[in-house]
Amino acid sequence: MNKTIILEKRPVGKPQLSDFKFTDTELPQIGANEVLLKTSLVSVDPYLRGRMSDAKSYSAPFQLQKPISSGIVAEVMESNNAAYTKGDYVSGLLEWKEFQKSEGKRLLKVDAAKAPLSAYLGVLGMTGLTAYLGLTEIGKPKKGETLVVSGAAGAVGSVVGQIGKLLGCRVVGIAGTDEKAEMLKAKYGFDAAINYTTTSNMIEAIATACPDGVDVYFDNVGGEITDGVLANINQLARIIICGSISVYNETSVPMGPRVETTLIKNSALMQGFIVSNYAAKFPEAIIQLSSWLQAGKLTYSETIIDGFDQIPQAFIGLFEGQNNGKMIVKI
Amino acid sequence: MNKTIILEKRPVGKPQLSDFKFTDTELPQIGANEVLLKTSLVSVDPYLRGRMSDAKSYSAPFQLQKPISSGIVAEVMESNNAAYTKGDYVSGLLEWKEFQKSEGKRLLKVDAAKAPLSAYLGVLGMTGLTAYLGLTEIGKPKKGETLVVSGAAGAVGSVVGQIGKLLGCRVVGIAGTDEKAEMLKAKYGFDAAINYTTTSNMIEAIATACPDGVDVYFDNVGGEITDGVLANINQLARIIICGSISVYNETSVPMGPRVETTLIKNSALMQGFIVSNYAAKFPEAIIQLSSWLQAGKLTYSETIIDGFDQIPQAFIGLFEGQNNGKMIVKI
Repeated sequence: MNKTIILEKRPVGKPQLSDFKFTDTELPQIGANEVLLKTSLVSVDPYLRGRMSDAKSYSAPFQLQKPISSGIVAEVMESNNAAYTKGDYVSGLLEWKEFQKSEGKRLLKVDAAKAPLSAYLGVLGMTGLTAYLGLTEIGKPKKGETLVVSGAAGAVGSVVGQIGKLLGCRVVGIAGTDEKAEMLKAKYGFDAAINYTTTSNMIEAIATACPDGVDVYFDNVGGEITDGVLANINQLARIIICGSISVYNETSVPMGPRVETTLIKNSALMQGFIVSNYAAKFPEAIIQLSSWLQAGKLTYSETIIDGFDQIPQAFIGLFEGQNNGKMIVKI
Repeated sequence: MNKTIILEKRPVGKPQLSDFKFTDTELPQIGANEVLLKTSLVSVDPYLRGRMSDAKSYSAPFQLQKPISSGIVAEVMESNNAAYTKGDYVSGLLEWKEFQKSEGKRLLKVDAAKAPLSAYLGVLGMTGLTAYLGLTEIGKPKKGETLVVSGAAGAVGSVVGQIGKLLGCRVVGIAGTDEKAEMLKAKYGFDAAINYTTTSNMIEAIATACPDGVDVYFDNVGGEITDGVLANINQLARIIICGSISVYNETSVPMGPRVETTLIKNSALMQGFIVSNYAAKFPEAIIQLSSWLQAGKLTYSETIIDGFDQIPQAFIGLFEGQNNGKMIVKI
């Protein structure tokens, strides 16, 4: 018995439970140099929605009737590989299976003594790298500038805001409930927060929260929230397009105000950010993030769901605002 | 008698002759350190439309009932300034007047022996600087890449395409008539050209003209042409938003497909370009452009209209496709 989750159908619009299928596969037998891994923690992320479509994108689409993969922390159960010992924990891009084997090449050993294992999927994993490298490599925030973050209560957004504060910015977050907006200020130290669901005029709300205009915008959401921010950008503003959760489930390209004149008038830069393009910078970024984390300067939220069977629902929950911070399934 | 053109009304939509008014002012008397200038050549440019509105932008709006200014080449008629002698020609941002005085601070002496005077408003002036610096500073084209230029038969676009060829790119131009498309290939050496007015499917047309996709897009037009190009961009594409003539006269922000997912999927960069932000690079750019021009490697077109009274109509003509290359009024 080795439960596996495969992509049964490509989602149309919002993913449904019926897009996924549970199958049983054999327990793998490991060969020379291989390790047997038992899945401990599974990261579910909005970007996986893109890989479930077969449109051309930066990473290959998942194949139908094949396992889905995402960031996973796993325990080494058996090892024929000198680099790993039974009992080690590793992280990597692995399949949604209870057990799997690996040659160990793209695994990273993680240390439960230095940080909770789940942090290696979050603030010390892809989430933290995305926040840090997106903000610093494209956003290049300067002390005293104003940073706006959409999806600010999410796993990436909450780290972006804290890094913005550490770098000396005024930081304004946008989230979808009053509780989240309150948390941005109380827990993460944002200077101001906007609940977009109760805001009728985003342009005015951003203008009020950002009296000196917006210099850097870290966008996880897109759509009308972005329209409101763009109306308030300063000369030479930098806009990091990191995610677009508001449109991931659209079946046609959504329409919105054209951005060309806004970009020209403000000599502004807008750039799509994919963390894997910055792999050369991962080591230094991890050192910086670990140092902040150990100094107590970075905090994070997790929503942990229990049980392998809950992986598809946890993923779907991302599009229903069911997470505070990083969404993780614990096996 | 010193004819002057003032902004009578802010244009709504496309500019009209009635937005401008001719007045007579006194012939200026020059004081210490001043020069008296007689206007020889006036550059009319699409970006002036932006300054005729009072919206916040990168340069201050023109004031109502005050003279409009643009790039002008003028002859020095009298001089109390040691840097200038009667008979010199200068270029600068000057007012739409037959005669005006200046302290000479922001004037550049130009040499009619090295290039035709009109070139200092074009390929060796703001036009050439915009083409060269927009392409190299944001577009960063590499040998073998594909460059697409919209508004390619215009003053900036035709220079961009030629520089693209000099830098080793495959260059595809988009223009609005068959004659212009033909000229792009025959006169400017573009590899392919598309007449957008007779193209029903821009996405397919770009795909056909760019079998390896689009790496750099120099956009002077915006709107549906841009939509067609964006559907064909490659990973890490760079998009220079230099102009948006298709929407300058719109009275509300036009709608179009949202660009966020396209930018993310391709890790693409889109940046508004204003040449004045790159003033520190003007000297080296002028040296490069002069060197290419003198070596016969850069050619340019001009549409020269005769008579001070024709300035407003020449400006309006820009939005009616009446120019091939740089539109200049000769006094």
